[in-house]
Amino acid sequence: MPTALLSTSSSLFSPPSSVTSSSSTSNLKNSTLCFFPRTISPKTHILTHRQTSLQVRSAVAIEKEIPENEKPDTFLRESDDPSSSSSPASSVRARFEKMIRDVQDSVCAALEAADGGAKFKEDVWSRPGGGGGISRVLQDGAVFEKAGVNVSVVYGVMPPEAYRAARGENSAEKPGPVPFFAAGISSVLHPKNPFAPTLHFNYRYFETDAPKDVPGAPRQWWFGGGTDLTPSYIFEDDVKHFHTVQKSACDKFDPTFYPRFKKWCDDYFFIKHRGERRGLGGIFFDDLNDYNQEMLLSFATECANSVIPAYIPIIERRKDTPFTEQHKAWQQLRRGRYVEFNLVYDRGTTFGLKTGGRIESILVSLPLTARWEYDHKPEEGTEEWKLLDACINPKEWI
Amino acid sequence: MPTALLSTSSSLFSPPSSVTSSSSTSNLKNSTLCFFPRTISPKTHILTHRQTSLQVRSAVAIEKEIPENEKPDTFLRESDDPSSSSSPASSVRARFEKMIRDVQDSVCAALEAADGGAKFKEDVWSRPGGGGGISRVLQDGAVFEKAGVNVSVVYGVMPPEAYRAARGENSAEKPGPVPFFAAGISSVLHPKNPFAPTLHFNYRYFETDAPKDVPGAPRQWWFGGGTDLTPSYIFEDDVKHFHTVQKSACDKFDPTFYPRFKKWCDDYFFIKHRGERRGLGGIFFDDLNDYNQEMLLSFATECANSVIPAYIPIIERRKDTPFTEQHKAWQQLRRGRYVEFNLVYDRGTTFGLKTGGRIESILVSLPLTARWEYDHKPEEGTEEWKLLDACINPKEWI
Repeated sequence: MPTALLSTSSSLFSPPSSVTSSSSTSNLKNSTLCFFPRTISPKTHILTHRQTSLQVRSAVAIEKEIPENEKPDTFLRESDDPSSSSSPASSVRARFEKMIRDVQDSVCAALEAADGGAKFKEDVWSRPGGGGGISRVLQDGAVFEKAGVNVSVVYGVMPPEAYRAARGENSAEKPGPVPFFAAGISSVLHPKNPFAPTLHFNYRYFETDAPKDVPGAPRQWWFGGGTDLTPSYIFEDDVKHFHTVQKSACDKFDPTFYPRFKKWCDDYFFIKHRGERRGLGGIFFDDLNDYNQEMLLSFATECANSVIPAYIPIIERRKDTPFTEQHKAWQQLRRGRYVEFNLVYDRGTTFGLKTGGRIESILVSLPLTARWEYDHKPEEGTEEWKLLDACINPKEWI
Repeated sequence: MPTALLSTSSSLFSPPSSVTSSSSTSNLKNSTLCFFPRTISPKTHILTHRQTSLQVRSAVAIEKEIPENEKPDTFLRESDDPSSSSSPASSVRARFEKMIRDVQDSVCAALEAADGGAKFKEDVWSRPGGGGGISRVLQDGAVFEKAGVNVSVVYGVMPPEAYRAARGENSAEKPGPVPFFAAGISSVLHPKNPFAPTLHFNYRYFETDAPKDVPGAPRQWWFGGGTDLTPSYIFEDDVKHFHTVQKSACDKFDPTFYPRFKKWCDDYFFIKHRGERRGLGGIFFDDLNDYNQEMLLSFATECANSVIPAYIPIIERRKDTPFTEQHKAWQQLRRGRYVEFNLVYDRGTTFGLKTGGRIESILVSLPLTARWEYDHKPEEGTEEWKLLDACINPKEWI
């Protein structure tokens, strides 16, 4: 969810996959980038989830973000960039930041054009310790009820215990706090028309420095992200088009990516208490570092650049479709499910809320309006039932 | 929240206060009754919260509720009532069940009268292992957007480790699984008019049997509950009236109750990520067993019987007040906060969702409609601002 990536740490939940990840744990991981805030107490221990949660609640006092009037050319700090001494602009960090800021510009321009009138409101902010972000929100437009497209670049320090856990619990090494870097773009787009689907996408890059006091300990990095579609009504052509664009982006890099990340997406966006997925999926991946780093940077870039061709044609087709109050009420019930997923399950959102991230940026993912009816059950065979059925039993769309 | 009490266990989070509770942990406890479902694996260990959560997720397969056509006179099982051999109708269990069913009848009748047309829809259900409940929902009435009033009577088995933890971790006793009994009434009432406040109340009673294989181990019991008011606009007379009725009920039993339970309520219904309370409070207590059991039964009865005199006069005064779209939009934003509290913080709701309670009963606490605007800030000095200020800085209303 938008800039939940600003507030939390995945290090407890999602260490680099080369170290400890498995497919069963992967499904539980954040859809958003997480990190330990700079000001976390170095005394925090990883003992139990409960202890950690309590300690995080009491120990974390994230530096309050400061509103800024102007966007900087970069949120990077030269002193913190390991490759800055040679060629700062060519580091993966720098190229990832440039990519997400370019994507933010191009996606916002495409959405404003599709909306035909409304403009994004921009909030720029920074943190005293370095890093910052740009939140852009378009609200109550002609086409979009609420659209948020946020980027952030953040620095933090991973407590030594977290780093040790990520490297293997039996390690005898005792590194000091490990600096890390995290950058991402995160977006949720809620259209007004009940036949136009909601879109979520999020791409993120994470790095830890090699700890200076542990000879031979490697620098870690990983990529995560995904793009997924949440319609209230199924238009097969739309869903096929959307998945085909995702598959094309994946296939340019590895033929195993689409089937693997499609399933990961179906598994992650699961509203367990309903037994339903939030929507009709797309792709999702996390902790990806077992490929060439340049290849994964290109892959994330390709995915992020695929958002416009995947989504805008669907919006153009559906934004003016006539609808009834019943269609709108069903969309509002599905919006309620979106709220349930984001507040109950999305790790980035829930952890972000508990640890003091920028609330307005985190919760911009929630729809403008939502609805909950007691014991609502669509009649079998209706269009509403078909959507629900596809959320309960994920399909192959291509 | 309504019949979240049907689904979860407080034993991990809220052992009887005579054993381990303290005021700092009390604030984190359930506002709803929780229990271990009968079918939980006896192998479950209380090691860490994380381990427990994972185990509960995998181990808990709550018996699916069965819809019933008729309400039984009682959901009690004679064989399970420790006092049934002598005088079943006079046991605390039996009198508590009778009390909550009477209150359900009288509150629903008063709400239907205030609504002036709409009728409650009733769902009766049972579980194969014994116990059951009556869910009543009035939706889209003239006065109420959504009103749920649920009672339930449930049986479960507390894993031996949970019981041991409740008795003190160093205990060398090794009891078998400990049967328990839980009954409660739970209700959330959302009116349509933005000047008419939302009400929540919940009263519950919990018992564990003395384990047969541990000589001398006591039977445990405790009471919990509360009534709290969530307006979108402050009418001082209304809030004073509401708190005065709560105080009167408390003062009949102990002069320390109102100040203590008023503060507990302010502390519990706290939306941490907003730094706001959900509403203007009332009373809240949990794990109450350090008074005479008969006295506490009378106290819970007095509190539950105070719902009508505390709330109905306010509804009568406000249900037809003229309002604008702006008033309605502010109410919808406050409804969004209600959703945030219930889905993110309410222990009964969140644990219930994760462990397979009756979803529709648990989520009937959510409003029919809610709204989230990006970065909404009421102008200082406005009526909206005054409500927000009172949620941020709880006041003494009497």
